[in-house]
Amino acid sequence: MSILVVGSVAFDTLTTPSGSRTKVLGGAATHFSLAASFFTDVRVVGVVGKDFLPEHEAVMTSKGIDTSGIEHADGLSFHWTGSYEGTMGEAKTLGTDLNVFGSFDPKIPASYKDTDYLFLANIDPVLQLRVRQAMPDVKMVAGDTMNYWIADHRANLDKVLAVEDILIINDGEARLLTGEHNLVTAAKKVMAMGPKSLVIKHGEYGATAFFSDRSFEDGGVSLVPFRAPALPIESVVDPTGAGDSFAGGFYGYIASQPKLTPRVFRTALFYGGVMGSFAVERFGTERLENTTREEIDERFGLFRQISHLDLDAA
Amino acid sequence: MSILVVGSVAFDTLTTPSGSRTKVLGGAATHFSLAASFFTDVRVVGVVGKDFLPEHEAVMTSKGIDTSGIEHADGLSFHWTGSYEGTMGEAKTLGTDLNVFGSFDPKIPASYKDTDYLFLANIDPVLQLRVRQAMPDVKMVAGDTMNYWIADHRANLDKVLAVEDILIINDGEARLLTGEHNLVTAAKKVMAMGPKSLVIKHGEYGATAFFSDRSFEDGGVSLVPFRAPALPIESVVDPTGAGDSFAGGFYGYIASQPKLTPRVFRTALFYGGVMGSFAVERFGTERLENTTREEIDERFGLFRQISHLDLDAA
Repeated sequence: MSILVVGSVAFDTLTTPSGSRTKVLGGAATHFSLAASFFTDVRVVGVVGKDFLPEHEAVMTSKGIDTSGIEHADGLSFHWTGSYEGTMGEAKTLGTDLNVFGSFDPKIPASYKDTDYLFLANIDPVLQLRVRQAMPDVKMVAGDTMNYWIADHRANLDKVLAVEDILIINDGEARLLTGEHNLVTAAKKVMAMGPKSLVIKHGEYGATAFFSDRSFEDGGVSLVPFRAPALPIESVVDPTGAGDSFAGGFYGYIASQPKLTPRVFRTALFYGGVMGSFAVERFGTERLENTTREEIDERFGLFRQISHLDLDAA
Repeated sequence: MSILVVGSVAFDTLTTPSGSRTKVLGGAATHFSLAASFFTDVRVVGVVGKDFLPEHEAVMTSKGIDTSGIEHADGLSFHWTGSYEGTMGEAKTLGTDLNVFGSFDPKIPASYKDTDYLFLANIDPVLQLRVRQAMPDVKMVAGDTMNYWIADHRANLDKVLAVEDILIINDGEARLLTGEHNLVTAAKKVMAMGPKSLVIKHGEYGATAFFSDRSFEDGGVSLVPFRAPALPIESVVDPTGAGDSFAGGFYGYIASQPKLTPRVFRTALFYGGVMGSFAVERFGTERLENTTREEIDERFGLFRQISHLDLDAA
């Protein structure tokens, strides 16, 4: 079934130990939708400026992504400038030019109204909630957020958390959101805020899913967390968009399945890791543009191989 | 088969967010041998002072650990004082009183000479090498080290690395040893220094094993790394000794098996994680003293459950 993602479509100017790039296609909604497009139909709501050319839109449309919800506004597109050093664990932001994204007011095309799966990428929680309310019939809502909204827009964020099925954040965000260092304690507190399930991303170390008794329709499943590994990757060129690509692979797989079962959730975490691992191998969206479902499934097999303990093996 | 571990037997004075303890039993060889004792026979070489009482030795001997190689010297035992804050990712050392450990000169009892598996815990590489040379007939040698030896005693350490089958270190040590941020690149460089296989510990995120074409007797195995998860644990009381307990569980399981196969190596990583997860649940050696093989195997099952992607499941 289809996914609607609402978030940034942007340009990134990047410096990493592998080199520099100026104004490559980026943004959370871009990485998410490219990653998800290998699994299901994707629709995007965002805003871009006059520097967003047909060739940029074609990156998405060539993957079958519906870009009719991308508004073209006067001015320039959101432009982020950042650099990574050392282990590339954290980006250093050198510039944030919001441009047309600064007054983003998500407009949902009538043709998007029948979307089943909604993904609220990292934007102002006021807008996340507005989109959620404009899509009352969606089957599932997943979302992301970041430190800025957690620290300074908490009341608004709380309203969004209350209506999300799955929240996807990283270690630091989970700790900031709850004031708890311990991730298990933090996970329980987050789910008490609303999300039925929680995915905490650990960067190069994979991700852990935490479940509540509301996670699955049938209930009654084991609430033991599930931890998916990340593939140790030698050629990390640019980590930008890895988390959004993870979310796209994860949620794209879920939307491609008839029902959210524990197996589907676990498999989705593996596909999330796979798409994140592709994303970092080239600057911007280059690697996601140039992969195939066959290559994705091959790497999925590798992810299983590096983490599967077969007690009957040699 | 039996393991000989050479390393520190000490007392730790600790402050963690869970409380404080003064002079509890600790030391790398202590944690290692307690963890390994659930899998195989363990023999210890170390040195203690007059403050190491029969009740302390009984903690080991009650688990069947052979302590006849622990030398009782004049003076006090090695005493480490440290504290942990926040995520408890790193200890802050407040005091290091080497005491009798400062002039540690490992003496291997004649009754230990037939030991098959040697573990060189984190001590001066000059001593590690001396012990290795005194045990020419061992079947396998594994070892640990730390930043201090990597940074300031590199020439000596290199001689030890050259004779080790398995090196067990953490992310930071792998990076310091090689000057490489990327763990895959770092792993290759480490194995080029000597170790046939490398285990890199990621703290609360588990561990990754890297293999070379010398890792297994039969050769020809896949060189894909293997990543074992750590159980997300809510009650982390004291991380001291977690890495040594990991090593003890890992190497203890290997020594209990007839041959080092890929399956044995992978299973050993899971048992390492299990023993590390027990170690942190109480101060000092308290939790390792009070577990059972049954409880260990129960948690081993949980570790598999949280990381096993069963594509045939519901």
